[in-house]
Amino acid sequence: MKAAVLHQYDTKLSSPEYVTLEDVPEPKIQNPTDVIVRIGGAGVCRTDLHIVEGIWREKVDVKLPYVMGHENAGWIEDVGKGVTEYKRGDPVICHPLITNCLALASRRGHDMHAEGSEFPGISTNGGYAELLRTGVGSLIKLPQTLAPKDVAPHADAGLTAYHVGKKAARDLSPGERVAVIGVGGLGHIGIQVLAALCSADIIAVDRSEAALALAKECGARHLVKADEHQVEAVLELTDGKGAEAVIDFVGEGNSIDNGLAMTRNNGAYYIVGYGGEIRISAIDMITTERRIIGNLVGTYSELVELMELANRGRVNLATQYYKLSDANTALHDLHHGKVRVRAVLMP
Amino acid sequence: MKAAVLHQYDTKLSSPEYVTLEDVPEPKIQNPTDVIVRIGGAGVCRTDLHIVEGIWREKVDVKLPYVMGHENAGWIEDVGKGVTEYKRGDPVICHPLITNCLALASRRGHDMHAEGSEFPGISTNGGYAELLRTGVGSLIKLPQTLAPKDVAPHADAGLTAYHVGKKAARDLSPGERVAVIGVGGLGHIGIQVLAALCSADIIAVDRSEAALALAKECGARHLVKADEHQVEAVLELTDGKGAEAVIDFVGEGNSIDNGLAMTRNNGAYYIVGYGGEIRISAIDMITTERRIIGNLVGTYSELVELMELANRGRVNLATQYYKLSDANTALHDLHHGKVRVRAVLMP
Amino acid sequence: MKAAVLHQYDTKLSSPEYVTLEDVPEPKIQNPTDVIVRIGGAGVCRTDLHIVEGIWREKVDVKLPYVMGHENAGWIEDVGKGVTEYKRGDPVICHPLITNCLALASRRGHDMHAEGSEFPGISTNGGYAELLRTGVGSLIKLPQTLAPKDVAPHADAGLTAYHVGKKAARDLSPGERVAVIGVGGLGHIGIQVLAALCSADIIAVDRSEAALALAKECGARHLVKADEHQVEAVLELTDGKGAEAVIDFVGEGNSIDNGLAMTRNNGAYYIVGYGGEIRISAIDMITTERRIIGNLVGTYSELVELMELANRGRVNLATQYYKLSDANTALHDLHHGKVRVRAVLMP
Amino acid sequence: MKAAVLHQYDTKLSSPEYVTLEDVPEPKIQNPTDVIVRIGGAGVCRTDLHIVEGIWREKVDVKLPYVMGHENAGWIEDVGKGVTEYKRGDPVICHPLITNCLALASRRGHDMHAEGSEFPGISTNGGYAELLRTGVGSLIKLPQTLAPKDVAPHADAGLTAYHVGKKAARDLSPGERVAVIGVGGLGHIGIQVLAALCSADIIAVDRSEAALALAKECGARHLVKADEHQVEAVLELTDGKGAEAVIDFVGEGNSIDNGLAMTRNNGAYYIVGYGGEIRISAIDMITTERRIIGNLVGTYSELVELMELANRGRVNLATQYYKLSDANTALHDLHHGKVRVRAVLMP
Repeated sequence: MKAAVLHQYDTKLSSPEYVTLEDVPEPKIQNPTDVIVRIGGAGVCRTDLHIVEGIWREKVDVKLPYVMGHENAGWIEDVGKGVTEYKRGDPVICHPLITNCLALASRRGHDMHAEGSEFPGISTNGGYAELLRTGVGSLIKLPQTLAPKDVAPHADAGLTAYHVGKKAARDLSPGERVAVIGVGGLGHIGIQVLAALCSADIIAVDRSEAALALAKECGARHLVKADEHQVEAVLELTDGKGAEAVIDFVGEGNSIDNGLAMTRNNGAYYIVGYGGEIRISAIDMITTERRIIGNLVGTYSELVELMELANRGRVNLATQYYKLSDANTALHDLHHGKVRVRAVLMP
Repeated sequence: MKAAVLHQYDTKLSSPEYVTLEDVPEPKIQNPTDVIVRIGGAGVCRTDLHIVEGIWREKVDVKLPYVMGHENAGWIEDVGKGVTEYKRGDPVICHPLITNCLALASRRGHDMHAEGSEFPGISTNGGYAELLRTGVGSLIKLPQTLAPKDVAPHADAGLTAYHVGKKAARDLSPGERVAVIGVGGLGHIGIQVLAALCSADIIAVDRSEAALALAKECGARHLVKADEHQVEAVLELTDGKGAEAVIDFVGEGNSIDNGLAMTRNNGAYYIVGYGGEIRISAIDMITTERRIIGNLVGTYSELVELMELANRGRVNLATQYYKLSDANTALHDLHHGKVRVRAVLMP
Repeated sequence: MKAAVLHQYDTKLSSPEYVTLEDVPEPKIQNPTDVIVRIGGAGVCRTDLHIVEGIWREKVDVKLPYVMGHENAGWIEDVGKGVTEYKRGDPVICHPLITNCLALASRRGHDMHAEGSEFPGISTNGGYAELLRTGVGSLIKLPQTLAPKDVAPHADAGLTAYHVGKKAARDLSPGERVAVIGVGGLGHIGIQVLAALCSADIIAVDRSEAALALAKECGARHLVKADEHQVEAVLELTDGKGAEAVIDFVGEGNSIDNGLAMTRNNGAYYIVGYGGEIRISAIDMITTERRIIGNLVGTYSELVELMELANRGRVNLATQYYKLSDANTALHDLHHGKVRVRAVLMP
Repeated sequence: MKAAVLHQYDTKLSSPEYVTLEDVPEPKIQNPTDVIVRIGGAGVCRTDLHIVEGIWREKVDVKLPYVMGHENAGWIEDVGKGVTEYKRGDPVICHPLITNCLALASRRGHDMHAEGSEFPGISTNGGYAELLRTGVGSLIKLPQTLAPKDVAPHADAGLTAYHVGKKAARDLSPGERVAVIGVGGLGHIGIQVLAALCSADIIAVDRSEAALALAKECGARHLVKADEHQVEAVLELTDGKGAEAVIDFVGEGNSIDNGLAMTRNNGAYYIVGYGGEIRISAIDMITTERRIIGNLVGTYSELVELMELANRGRVNLATQYYKLSDANTALHDLHHGKVRVRAVLMP
């Protein structure tokens, strides 16, 4: 089958071809709970660029070459002997992990922390291909109203935004404020999730006017240009004291320092984007009693919930489509800021 | 009345006399809800040294000279016209804030974040004196079994340890682990609080053998010497993955880096001690989904709960007594590591 | 001043005059924290009818005659010596309790359970009058956009609906369902609150087509006629298993049995209306692991949050106005089902 | 193999032989995730008597004859092809459900509510036998220190007590009170669990002096004889207002009315035992804002946590052993009050 394969890291992202389009053997059922999914769409994610850069090299155990692509949706092609719930042709979206359902963490609902899990597209072959092997435990059946290619980016981008949005919403009451830094692929979903799950006032922060306009459509109440006055602007909107929650989808450059400066006493700063460093004195953490919260993708049941929102039109995804054979174009477009929101590869 | 007054900062803590013993006017009732407390004991806290150093200068709005002392207990001396619940002679411990009970934060139970509050000993005159002015809303009546001088350090040190211990305990199940870094005045209370509020295994980390012995008495299951192998030692006790919670009562030197390295994925690092800096890359926060949690003293109702534990003998305080006139000796002893656990001044 | 006074109970609600319009002495400042509010509007509540019936006689300690009216908003007329936050003319809504702010329950944010509180209109003179005495701790300043007469019913009806809606929303995820039984004065607010605080599907259940039409406007997704097929209808909408949450604003007749029958395993039934009885076998509670949750008005901070929703147009109140001198007309209209949603008396 | 088989219901529990000891075919592996466990011990539970009585007939879908026994521990005998985590001879305790690990409820950690699960001993063949078929997802490996026959009753009785104890402990602060009604097989574990998970004062209520003495050993602070003065006695211990939590392990006779009368405003009544009926007026639920909470066994991860407590000696089980061939003796002893705490059958 056709697949986009990563053969070597490219720390500067300077080569014209990050991945190679080639024929690879089709994946096979290995365990009774395995399933093969025919890919309908595979999302292209900033994390894919970071993988190419080699940033993830030390974080996961993976050997090159392998097939990238961790945001996958499609139709059931084949199932293992232990699988009775799905049949060929069923449309599905795949939670990004092949979760080890027996791990204590997954028994507690913390799928992402289950030991012995695999992560297609990150630690094993992914969905920049015609077919993908995953586990029955990662599947969610799609309703008629949602086509695989249209929801694929929800498998990671959407799920990550939902996960952090749900965490933040739990602590936000009407009259409180949440600042969202970065209204791109994740941020524009995050704003819709917040608008669906709570009534806090959403303050969107971005450098681009177009992104801020999108934020408005998604449910933001206040728009702040991410220039040198952004912290003051947020403080002005929040009685000079900052927002009860700040979600940082950028996580590099000065967004971390700004994000922390926008966070009110007794509030929380959620870090989602990465590349930068958190630096803060202990006394500043203590006198303000703030929290800094890491966020890693989301759980299976959260993806179920996100699909319910999508199916009700509460969360919409802005997507750009590319052919699988144009994977490098998509990755370069993303790298050069030409993808407004979310790119999807179609085999 | 006699009082120990701070006249000037001493950034190096080099002078022989940090505070001056002198006669000052007695405090007066100013508002209908004010009370005057005759001090039975006033705890001496590392924060007092930090105040002398000037570390708090920019954090609070206070003008020198003023009377230090923020851990106070004693007996009611006088009450304002709006106070009907207390009468002269009642033994009380004082929550460290004169809380603005009308602030929205305090209506939600977050006393420490109530705007318009005063902090005797930090932002206004405190309890290194014969008499203290505070508000009726900070008082907790003591049972016969608890003498003011014996519980005074609970007003801040104990309360801080209880607050963070309760936060951590809420997320800890049997079989999980909590590492406590620093078994001094706060740490030895924190261990007792954790033992009272959950059944997680407590791992005490300290440089001193005596402190570790005390930790054992307080309820620690594992003792780790805080040397260059401390992180490995904690990892060995936790399947190589770290503790679900780490409470850092030191917060300076390498304790922060060590504490973060001891924190398991999906776990929380609680910062209580200060002086140092937190530095961690965004990607490390994200792939591990850890939380960094600031902690600031505690609420009124938490001090009520701590008194209940003290009254049942579940939390015991190791104290050393000094005369008020020996305030400088107490402060120097603390500075030079001669106070094993908690010093108390008695007028 | 003019006031509507209850002189005797009327268990059958058969007399033409439940209350007597008469001149009574103006309330006076008694404590430093007291305030006098000039009434702009006083909501008329089903609980007022229950008070007339004598249902509350044994529940609270009150002696007739007294002035009814527990949903009050207006303008500051006078303040006690300890009050610095408000001045004559400030528009305010009154949390229904004169909360004892020193009680441990209120320090924990559970105002309604604070011992030593008074309840104007229930346990002492209320707001069916020109002036009302309450405490500074019950006041919330209104923004320009909200007139006292327009928000008065929020003080109890709205607050109760918000309180239970917030409790329920906390446990509801997208794709889950909440059934709301009774779309009257409280129910139509409850639906708006649920729509603001979560994305669960709202199923409105009522006997009246007009009420169901209002429910739709308020944000209900499904409408169910409260006839003999109502339980089946809800089961059909919920995979045959019931709703994760059921909020019963009726609480009499067969609404309790129906409500419990509509509640899914591991779900919660919230009881708000009253008059009826809960009857269920222990084995049915256990095999289904359901919860039955009592609900009593709401907290001060919840009323603050509700005002934020009202100010943003997220919760709108349907009201009918009466002159204070027409109090009996209003009460009779309510008793005979002629008040569509919420009646308000204006002095 | 030998097994104790239920052939017919006996609504009065009047026959001498509730179950028949006979040879039945050995269970076989049916699915890749199945395991066969050689029984080391099978607990005998009051629910077994209720099954014989036919109380569960309408609650579950089961056809007679079948093998009873839902509290099982032993050693791995055989495993399906999809099982790699266990090998013959491994000592295990079995969570009582063969959980459908793909169900949304189990993905959220609510195993007991996962559709498509089986319940050996209740809805299919159980452990009153030499061998038991269950699923790999129900297994917990035992440490050397815990023998199967000694922990078997934890699989249901212990787990149920842990589940409700953990729920209650989450809301209990030091100084608050929890009343435990019934100190039998479940109650004596429940008290130990509460003592391990919180510092609330435990009030044990039982008719038997021996049971109260056991309660004392288990960690109860106050002992109350379950006579006609029990409610007053509990009120006296709780400022006349009742306990913040009441756990009713009896659930029949007057224990429910008493339990509700012992529950403080804003508190919770947990129902575990069954046989009786809950009856309370809506107005009483509302003015007191109490909660009535059903409880059904517990989750897989809770059984893991309970084993950790058992392994640390924090929860000890009082057991009486019988041969499998004496199953009827054990059941009759239980029925006639001759089992002090917990009976275990050994093949």
